[in-house]
Amino acid sequence: MNRLYKLDEWRIIEEGFHPEFNRESESIFSIGNGYMGQRANFEEQYSGDSLTGNYVAGVYYPDKTRVGWWKNGYPEYFAKVLNAPKWIGIDICVNKKPVDLTSAKISFFTRTLNMKEGYLDREFKLSVAGNKTLEFNIRRFLSMPEPDAGIIKYSIRSVDFEGAIDFTVYLDADVRNEDANYGKKFWREVSREISQEHGILIARTLKTDFHVATGMCFNFLKNGKETRVNSNLIDLEKYVGNAFKENIKPGDELSIVKFVSVLSSLNNPKEDLMGDVKKRLREISSKGFEILFSDHIKVWEKIWKTSDIVIESDIAAQQAIRFNIFQLNQTYTGKDERLNIGPKGFTGEKYGGSTYWDTEAFVLPFFLKTADQKVGRNLLLYRYKHLQASIKNAEKLGFKNGAALYPMVTMNGEECHNEWEITFEEIHRNGAIAFAICNYIKHTGDNEYLADYGLEVLIGISRFWSQRATWSENLKKFVILGVTGPNEYENNVSNNWHTNSMASWTMSYTIESLLKVMKELPDKYRDLISKTGFDFSGETSLWQKIIDNLHMPFDEGRKVFLQQDGFLDKELMDAGKIPSGERPINQHWSWDRILRSCFIKQADVLQSLYVFEDKYDTETIRRNFDFYEPMTVHESSLSACIHSIIASRLGYIEKAYELYLRTSRLDLDDYNNEVGDGLHITSMAGTWLAIVEGFGGMRIDEEKVQINPLIPVQWKSYSFHARFRGSLFEVKVTKEEIIINNLSDKCLPMVVYGKEYQIAVSEKKAINHRVTRSCTD
Amino acid sequence: MNRLYKLDEWRIIEEGFHPEFNRESESIFSIGNGYMGQRANFEEQYSGDSLTGNYVAGVYYPDKTRVGWWKNGYPEYFAKVLNAPKWIGIDICVNKKPVDLTSAKISFFTRTLNMKEGYLDREFKLSVAGNKTLEFNIRRFLSMPEPDAGIIKYSIRSVDFEGAIDFTVYLDADVRNEDANYGKKFWREVSREISQEHGILIARTLKTDFHVATGMCFNFLKNGKETRVNSNLIDLEKYVGNAFKENIKPGDELSIVKFVSVLSSLNNPKEDLMGDVKKRLREISSKGFEILFSDHIKVWEKIWKTSDIVIESDIAAQQAIRFNIFQLNQTYTGKDERLNIGPKGFTGEKYGGSTYWDTEAFVLPFFLKTADQKVGRNLLLYRYKHLQASIKNAEKLGFKNGAALYPMVTMNGEECHNEWEITFEEIHRNGAIAFAICNYIKHTGDNEYLADYGLEVLIGISRFWSQRATWSENLKKFVILGVTGPNEYENNVSNNWHTNSMASWTMSYTIESLLKVMKELPDKYRDLISKTGFDFSGETSLWQKIIDNLHMPFDEGRKVFLQQDGFLDKELMDAGKIPSGERPINQHWSWDRILRSCFIKQADVLQSLYVFEDKYDTETIRRNFDFYEPMTVHESSLSACIHSIIASRLGYIEKAYELYLRTSRLDLDDYNNEVGDGLHITSMAGTWLAIVEGFGGMRIDEEKVQINPLIPVQWKSYSFHARFRGSLFEVKVTKEEIIINNLSDKCLPMVVYGKEYQIAVSEKKAINHRVTRSCTD
Repeated sequence: MNRLYKLDEWRIIEEGFHPEFNRESESIFSIGNGYMGQRANFEEQYSGDSLTGNYVAGVYYPDKTRVGWWKNGYPEYFAKVLNAPKWIGIDICVNKKPVDLTSAKISFFTRTLNMKEGYLDREFKLSVAGNKTLEFNIRRFLSMPEPDAGIIKYSIRSVDFEGAIDFTVYLDADVRNEDANYGKKFWREVSREISQEHGILIARTLKTDFHVATGMCFNFLKNGKETRVNSNLIDLEKYVGNAFKENIKPGDELSIVKFVSVLSSLNNPKEDLMGDVKKRLREISSKGFEILFSDHIKVWEKIWKTSDIVIESDIAAQQAIRFNIFQLNQTYTGKDERLNIGPKGFTGEKYGGSTYWDTEAFVLPFFLKTADQKVGRNLLLYRYKHLQASIKNAEKLGFKNGAALYPMVTMNGEECHNEWEITFEEIHRNGAIAFAICNYIKHTGDNEYLADYGLEVLIGISRFWSQRATWSENLKKFVILGVTGPNEYENNVSNNWHTNSMASWTMSYTIESLLKVMKELPDKYRDLISKTGFDFSGETSLWQKIIDNLHMPFDEGRKVFLQQDGFLDKELMDAGKIPSGERPINQHWSWDRILRSCFIKQADVLQSLYVFEDKYDTETIRRNFDFYEPMTVHESSLSACIHSIIASRLGYIEKAYELYLRTSRLDLDDYNNEVGDGLHITSMAGTWLAIVEGFGGMRIDEEKVQINPLIPVQWKSYSFHARFRGSLFEVKVTKEEIIINNLSDKCLPMVVYGKEYQIAVSEKKAINHRVTRSCTD
Repeated sequence: MNRLYKLDEWRIIEEGFHPEFNRESESIFSIGNGYMGQRANFEEQYSGDSLTGNYVAGVYYPDKTRVGWWKNGYPEYFAKVLNAPKWIGIDICVNKKPVDLTSAKISFFTRTLNMKEGYLDREFKLSVAGNKTLEFNIRRFLSMPEPDAGIIKYSIRSVDFEGAIDFTVYLDADVRNEDANYGKKFWREVSREISQEHGILIARTLKTDFHVATGMCFNFLKNGKETRVNSNLIDLEKYVGNAFKENIKPGDELSIVKFVSVLSSLNNPKEDLMGDVKKRLREISSKGFEILFSDHIKVWEKIWKTSDIVIESDIAAQQAIRFNIFQLNQTYTGKDERLNIGPKGFTGEKYGGSTYWDTEAFVLPFFLKTADQKVGRNLLLYRYKHLQASIKNAEKLGFKNGAALYPMVTMNGEECHNEWEITFEEIHRNGAIAFAICNYIKHTGDNEYLADYGLEVLIGISRFWSQRATWSENLKKFVILGVTGPNEYENNVSNNWHTNSMASWTMSYTIESLLKVMKELPDKYRDLISKTGFDFSGETSLWQKIIDNLHMPFDEGRKVFLQQDGFLDKELMDAGKIPSGERPINQHWSWDRILRSCFIKQADVLQSLYVFEDKYDTETIRRNFDFYEPMTVHESSLSACIHSIIASRLGYIEKAYELYLRTSRLDLDDYNNEVGDGLHITSMAGTWLAIVEGFGGMRIDEEKVQINPLIPVQWKSYSFHARFRGSLFEVKVTKEEIIINNLSDKCLPMVVYGKEYQIAVSEKKAINHRVTRSCTD
C-alpha cells in the first residue's frame, strides 16, 4: 500500500512531484469522456519514465499474437486499443532550454483531479536563469457534451524572470504501444495540414484501417488578452506544429488555449474527415474555453446528482467511492452500442482495452442502477451484434447448429485470447452474458428486448451448453468436463459448480423465455424460430434432460457445493497459513503449485450464490461462505466485492467492511503495485455494488426494490442513489434510521427489511434501522 | 503417405529431382557422425525451397522465449541447436551462368544415401549452352573415425561442352536458424583467414560464446590429376572463399576434393582453435580422399556387423529398419557424455535439438542392446551432471531439500520448455530418468554405477516424488495432483496412473538401492549420505508410507487401471469412430475438444505396463491393452512401438505388425507430412525395439536373456543382433525355427520360450519355432 495522494472528498491531489511514481499518477489522474481518454502525461516534453496514452474508443489494432506453442483454435491476433496520435503536445523552452520536469528545478508541484467537475489541473514553479521563478498552471478536460473535444489551458506567469519563451504547439502521430508484440508502429499518416490557423493530422491504423483525424488550433493570451502570433510552421511526417517565441517580464502571464477535435472513421466517412475536423475546430474554438468548460461541468453535475454516494466520517472511503464512480462515468457513457468497457478503460494498454465478462458481471449492474436504461440496453446490444461472430467462435471449436460461445476477450466478437485454459475453457462467461439479459429485464421491465434481441442470444448460448455437456455413463449424469471457472487458480477441471450452475440456469431461462415470447408475441416468436432454425421440442427436451441430470458436485459431509469434482482431494487450509512473504501467491508460486493448492483467486461457487442468491437459503449460503472465504486469496480485483456483498447478506458486517476496504482504494493506494499499468475500471463497479447491494442490501425482486441496510461501525452514515424502472431514489443509512428520498415523479414501492412501504413523490421516508441482523436471518 | 524413394535393401534413392519435396529429401539424405550433422543441402547455390542445416553437437543458443502469457517458473530461454557456419559450399558457374537446380535444365538426377558405407551421392546431367551436357557427380561424408572431418568430392564431366567453368570453394558463417524466435542471427565472426592453402572462419555464438572454427582446403583434379590452381581470394565479413576458372572440353573431368575440419571450443581451447584447425586440415588433407573414405566405411562395417537387422521377403521393411539403425548411429556415438540425442538428431531445428525423456525411454534401450556399455553409461552420466541444475529447477517450483526435477527439454540441465502443463506437470520424465539407471544396471551388471552416480540421482528424484505427493484427507490416500502423463491429450489431471506408478517404483528402487549400497559399499554409502544430507529413517519411512498408500486409480468393473481419476467420466469410444477427415485430431480439433475426449495420443497406462511388465500377469496386461488400444490415436511417434511390443507380448501378431508398420517407415514415407522439419530420430529406436523386444520378445530377466519370438506372416524370416553384458549374439527367426548364433567369446545362457539353453561360443543353435503363442500365455 502506498498512500501517495492527499485525502479529499472531491479531489485527488498529488503534492510534490514524484517521478518514481509518475506512471502511477498518470493512471490515477487520467481523464476521459466515454469517447476518448488521456493519461495524465505532460503537455511539455518529459524524458522521465512515462506511459504515454491517448485512447480513442473503438479504434483498435489486431496485433499478431505471440504464442509459445500453438494450439488449434487459437486466434491469430490480439486486438489492442491504440495509443492514438498525441493531441496534448505543447513544448516549452525558456531561454532556449527545454522545460523537462526530469531535469528541471521545481520548487512546487501539484496535480489535482477534480472529480466533481471533471478536469485535471497541474501547477508547478520552475526555477530558471539562476534563481528566477516561473509559475506554470495547466488545466485540461475532455468535454462530456462534445466528446470529440479536448481543451487545454496552459499558462506561464513570471514572478521575476525576464527572457524569451519558445512555444511549440503540436500534434504527433509517431506514437507506439508499449505492448506491441513485435515492437511495430501501428499508425500510418494519411494526410496533414499546418497553417497559422490550424494543424491537422490524419492517420490510419494498419490492417483495421481506422482513420483518425486530430485537429488543433489555439489562442495565445498575454496577460489575459488574446494576442495574434506569427508562428513557424513545422511540417514533418506524422507531425505538425506551430512554433513561436514570446518575451516575458516579471508579472506577465502567457497562456495558450489549445482546442482539439478528434474524429474517427467510426463516426465520420473517411473522405469527409479533413473537412469535418476543420468544421469542428471552428465550432469548438468559437465557443471558447469558458463556455466549453461550463457546459462540461454541467454534465458532471447531473451525473453526481443521480449517482453520488456520500459517506460521513470516513474521508478515505468517501474519496475512493467517488473516484470509482467518476472513473466509470469517464469510461463509458452508454451512447454507442459499438463501445464497451475494457478492464483498464482509457487508462492503460493492459488487457488490450478489450471486452471481458467483467462488463456483464460487474459493470452492467452498476449502470443498471445508476444510469438510464438505454445504457444497459446498449451494453446488451453490443453482445447481440457479436452473436454471429460468437457462433463462428464456437464452430472453430467444433460446435454446431448455431451454438454460440462468446469470446473471453474481444473487440469485434472474434476471440482474441490465446491461453487454451482460458480461451477454450473459461466458458462460464457465456453464462454471464446470458444472465445479463435477465438482469437487464429485471431492472428495466423492458420485456420487448427479449423478443427482439435477447432470446436469439439465449438460444445460441443454450445450444452451446447442451453440446458442451456430455453424458457420463459412469456417473449416470451429464457432466461438463475440462473447464476453468472464475477461479483461474484451477484449470481444466470437471464440473465446476459455477459453470454448471450457469449452464443449467441459462437453459431453464431460455425455455421459460421461449414459452413467454411464444405466448405473448407469437409473430416475433415465429420469426425467431425461422431465423434460428429452432426445433422447439427436440432442442428443449434435450436441454430439460440436461437440466434435470446435470452433475452438481456436493459434499454430503460439509453440505457445501464443491468448486469442482476433485476439490476435496486437495489439502484444504486457510489462506492465513501462507507466509506473508509469499503473498500474492501469483507473484511467488509456480503455476502448478497454485493449481494444486486449494487457494481461490476469486469468488467461484460464491459467484453463483451471488448471482442466484434467491435460489438458496441463508444457511446454505453461510455454509459455503464459511467454507470458501478462508481459502480465497482475492488475487483478482473482482473477488473481494462479491465476498463483501455476501458477507453483508449474512450479517458479517466486519468481514464485509474488511473485504470492501480491499477494493475501494485498490488503485488510489496501489495495493498491488500495478497502477502504473492503468486503473481497475471494471472492478470499480464491484466496489459500488459492495456498498449498494452489500451494506445497502439492495435487490430487485418480483418487480420491487428491496433494501436491507447495514452500516459499518466506522461510518457515521452513508447514502447512495439508485434507479429502478424510471424511478430515482436516494437511501441514507445512519446508525439510527434509513431515510428514503423518492426523487422521481411517481410513487415508489420499496421493501425495507422485508416490509413494504410506498414512498410518495419527493417524500423522505425515515424507517428505524435494524442495527444487528440476526445470524440466522 | 508418400513413397518418393526407391525401395532398396541398403540404399535410399531419389530418382529425378523433386523440388517440391526438397526439404523432405534434405532430411532423409542427412549425414552425420555423432559429432556433427549435415542436411542434404546442395553444395552449389540453390534458390528453391530449402532448410539449410549443419549442426555441431553441443553448440547451442539460448533463444529468448516467445510466450503468450507468462507464468511464474517459466524459463527465460529455449535452447536451440544452431545452424552452424556452412562448410559444404562450392558454387559453380558455367560460362558465367551460376548453376542453380531451381532454374537449371537437368535431364537426369539422382540422390543416393548409402547406408552400408555411410555416404551421400548426388548425380545430375545439366544441359548447358543450348544442347550440351555436363555430368555432375558429388559424394560427401562426415568421417566416423575423424569426426571433425567433412569431405566432398565434387566432379564435373563434360560430354560435349566446351567452355569455362568458375568454381568458388567457400565457407559462410552468415547463416540463420529458421526457428529463431525474433529473427536474430546467432553467430558473430571472431576471425578469418584465406589463402591459396586454406580458408578458415572462426565464429562465436552470442550469449553462450561457443567458438566454432571451420577450416577448408581443397585439391583440384583435372582428369584425375591433381592440378594447382591460382585462385582469387574472397575475404568478406563471415565469408571466405577461393575462386578460380578452368576450361573444360568434351571428355574432361574437373574435380574438387574439399577437406573440412570443424572444431569447437567444447573440445579445443578458444585460443588454440586457429592453430588446431590448421593442423587438422593438414592431417586430413594429407590422408587424401581414398584413405579417409576407406577408414570411414570400415567403421560402418563394424557397426552393421553387430547391429544389423535382416528381414527376408519384405524390402520396404528391410530398408526402413536399416534406415533407422543408420540414422541412430549417425546421431549418437556415445563417446562424449556432454552430448545427447535430440528428437530430430542433426536433421532439423525442430524441438531445438534438445534432450527429452525420449532418450531414457526409447533410445537408451536401443543402445543398451546394440552398443558397448560405455554408450549407455555416457547417456546416464549426461543426466548425472545435470543433477544440481535439476535440483535448482525443482527449487524454482517450490520444492526443497535436494528434490530434483529433471527438465522436460534441456541442453545444460536447465528447463527450456514453457507450457505449464508440460514444463511443470509432465513430471513422469523424472521416473523415466530413474528407471534408466535400473535398466542400465540390468543390462550391463555395472553395479558400481549405482554407488558412484546413480543413487545420488535416485535420491533427488525420490525426494521430489515424496514432496509432490500430498495427502488427501478425503480419499485417505496419497495423491499426485495436477500432472500430465505421457498422453499429452490430457492435461492437469490427478493421479495419472503411469506417473504414480513411476513415482512409487522410484521410491521403492531407491530404498532398495540404498540398502544394497549400504551393505555392499559402506564407505561410498557414507560419503553419499553426507553429500546429500540424507536422513535415512525419516526420508525412507515417508517414502514407504507413500508407496503403501498411493492412490492408483482402478476400475473395479472392468478391472483395468485408470489413466487418471476422471477418465471414466469421459465418453468412451473407439478411435475408429473419428471421421477419417478429422485425423490426426491434433490438426483438426481444438485443444479443449481433444482434452475432453477419451482419445489417447500415446501409450500411457500401457507405457507403465511396458516398463514394469514383470509386475503384472498377462491377463491384466491384456485387459488394459484391449481397453486402451482402441482409444489410442498414436499421434506421437513414440506410441505405436510400445503398443506393438505389448501386442506381440499378448500374441496379437497381426496387431503388432500393423502397429509396427506405423512407425518403421514413418519418415521414409512421410506419413505425417512433416519430414521437411527433420527425421524422428528418437522414435526410430522404438521401431527397433518393436522388432527385438516385440517380435523377438527379448527381455533381460534375472541376469539372463530371454527371447520369445513370433514372426509376422508377411516375413519369411528376420534376424537381429543384440548384446548382453559383453556377449554379442544374433537371433534369426524363420517360420520353422529360431537360430541363435553366439558371436562372442563366452558361453551364452539364453531362455527361449521359457526353456534355458547354453549357447556355446560360435555355436549356431536351432530351436523349433512355436508358431502360435497361446492367448492365455
